[in-house]
Amino acid sequence: MKHISKYLLFICLFFTIESFAQSVKTENGLRSSYTGNSDYKIVQVDPGKGKKVKNVILMIADGMGLTHLSAAWVANNGKMNILDNCMHTGLSKTYCANKLITDSGAAGTAMATGHKTNYHCIGVNPEGNVLQSLTDLANNKGLSTGIVVTCGLTDATPATFCTNNIDRDREEEIALDYLSCNVDFIFGGGRNKFNMRSDNRDLMQEMKERGYQVCYSWQETQLAQEGKVFAVLEDGQLPLADERGDLFNRATQKALKNLAVNKKGFFTMFEGSRIDDCGHENDLFKLIPEIWDFDKTVGEVLKWAEKDGKTLVVILADHETGALTLTDGSLQKGEVTVNFANKGHSGIMVPVYSYGPQSNLFSGVMDNTDVFNKIKSILKL
Amino acid sequence: MKHISKYLLFICLFFTIESFAQSVKTENGLRSSYTGNSDYKIVQVDPGKGKKVKNVILMIADGMGLTHLSAAWVANNGKMNILDNCMHTGLSKTYCANKLITDSGAAGTAMATGHKTNYHCIGVNPEGNVLQSLTDLANNKGLSTGIVVTCGLTDATPATFCTNNIDRDREEEIALDYLSCNVDFIFGGGRNKFNMRSDNRDLMQEMKERGYQVCYSWQETQLAQEGKVFAVLEDGQLPLADERGDLFNRATQKALKNLAVNKKGFFTMFEGSRIDDCGHENDLFKLIPEIWDFDKTVGEVLKWAEKDGKTLVVILADHETGALTLTDGSLQKGEVTVNFANKGHSGIMVPVYSYGPQSNLFSGVMDNTDVFNKIKSILKL
Repeated sequence: MKHISKYLLFICLFFTIESFAQSVKTENGLRSSYTGNSDYKIVQVDPGKGKKVKNVILMIADGMGLTHLSAAWVANNGKMNILDNCMHTGLSKTYCANKLITDSGAAGTAMATGHKTNYHCIGVNPEGNVLQSLTDLANNKGLSTGIVVTCGLTDATPATFCTNNIDRDREEEIALDYLSCNVDFIFGGGRNKFNMRSDNRDLMQEMKERGYQVCYSWQETQLAQEGKVFAVLEDGQLPLADERGDLFNRATQKALKNLAVNKKGFFTMFEGSRIDDCGHENDLFKLIPEIWDFDKTVGEVLKWAEKDGKTLVVILADHETGALTLTDGSLQKGEVTVNFANKGHSGIMVPVYSYGPQSNLFSGVMDNTDVFNKIKSILKL
Repeated sequence: MKHISKYLLFICLFFTIESFAQSVKTENGLRSSYTGNSDYKIVQVDPGKGKKVKNVILMIADGMGLTHLSAAWVANNGKMNILDNCMHTGLSKTYCANKLITDSGAAGTAMATGHKTNYHCIGVNPEGNVLQSLTDLANNKGLSTGIVVTCGLTDATPATFCTNNIDRDREEEIALDYLSCNVDFIFGGGRNKFNMRSDNRDLMQEMKERGYQVCYSWQETQLAQEGKVFAVLEDGQLPLADERGDLFNRATQKALKNLAVNKKGFFTMFEGSRIDDCGHENDLFKLIPEIWDFDKTVGEVLKWAEKDGKTLVVILADHETGALTLTDGSLQKGEVTVNFANKGHSGIMVPVYSYGPQSNLFSGVMDNTDVFNKIKSILKL
């Protein structure tokens, strides 16, 4: 009898497992296979006919190259919000001022400020001079601004939109810059750089003194009123998708709700930050759910933009991570086999996907600095 | 004195070597480096303002994924005709009816006929029924048609536009179909399937009897008058770029000259066929010049289209070959290091580049079958 119970338990467990992954070191790199079932429905949004842009939402999938999205699309049986709804696509050249293979600092600076800069720089040019970012310019024009990320706020991508430093590793200095960044809605992780500092300052408290509603949890964040919000939910990065749940989606929707109050419009940057970490770790099992979480969030953002009618959504990566290739798979079975050829970044161009009024301007080949130039021009910043 | 001569000879040789390549088998696959100087100038064509399309030129770079073009762009110091002149870009899903990773037969059939079919099928659906291709439809409407390739004419891609067979390997049967394909300008290699056959028929002679000017050499081809041309210059494939020189460019220009006589317009397909072979062989040293040769030819085609003003040019790959990633390099030095992770095809989406009137219709995400649908609609076939 005991044996039969164990056998039944095994069968139950077998059919409960929703996802399956394995990795094998081969002569061509790390070959990983993934079979999984996603739990989200693909939205279908109308392209709309308006041409006026009031708001711009820039969504960065850190490290998500064309292979990453192709692989997540296969694992999701051929459906992705990005691919099924974006009206236009472009290609972005990611090289930085002093290297072909960029990092998130230089790449983020290019998109945030319109300047190619050196590897590891944050919002400064190669000479170290401070550059104005899209959030600075939008602020100056009276638009609202927002940043929602799943990494620490002093990590490279969010830092390039809010701060300035010649070295992305000087995170305590970068944290100080948030005091004067004027961004209205700030959400992410990395609290230890704000209140566990070598100078013993409590920047969480100082942000409060500067008029921010300072939030330490999602419960506090969702209760935050209009006006400035500084929500830092973890000491380090936010956890990965399996533990984080739909927090990224909830945070972006909360940001949109708060920012949309401004009749002049808004600029906001939402980052699926941890796709890059999974690429660096060559971990397909974590990577696919991170991309799916980003894509789910894109779906809800596109629904919001469709309803608004005057919102342009631009979705892209800053660079590719993991030198990933898609070597086998099945759309019917949601099976995918990939190969990681390195644990760093690569030099391939990355796609740009766009939705909404004037999204046609993001078709064709561009430099990553053109992302800044186009948004600046569209919002008349 | 002898020693000095040898030393001088060595120095002379060193500075004579224009290109340099090396390959090393690593734990991540075959890592290859290339440093080279190209010998072509990048054209700068005007986007034009017309909207009417009279002619469509479809240019297929067999096996050229986004990494391939990114690598060739780095090796050419950041300049490519495709990237610097195409007004719009899209992404094409390449999967075939029964596999994620397609071949040139099923992928060519999708673009030529608008139907997803099984791996290795040529111009037939999965049940084996004959499908009409863009050349058939254009012919029926009185437009002129052309095919220029650097492989054998019975190889998969050209075959999908001119012939029908359930198996791409039945090349002698495929050759027979050319007798009834009605394409006006046909140029490529693979003569042994036409006049060294197991049935002892001489299809070169039979094509002549059907009214084609049959050419065995470039000299004969360049003298060919208006009207039907069947030029098969080699027993096998045309040689690789280093030996072939600018033959692909000359042949496409000759095709354009002949086809443009028709006031109703034309549809033509030009293929840089041998990029795929170099991918299969994981040979970066041959691959880069093949892509450059394709890109040079694109430059001249774009100049022709710019002058014409009513020609749409669509440039894309049928699939990616070699699971290639771009792991290091320098734009300044024209140095590139890549990794090949397999010797076959991969499942990544491939970019679509377009120039000319209505090129905006090729922005966004599409199935490879949409290439057929869009061209059919634009030319009203």
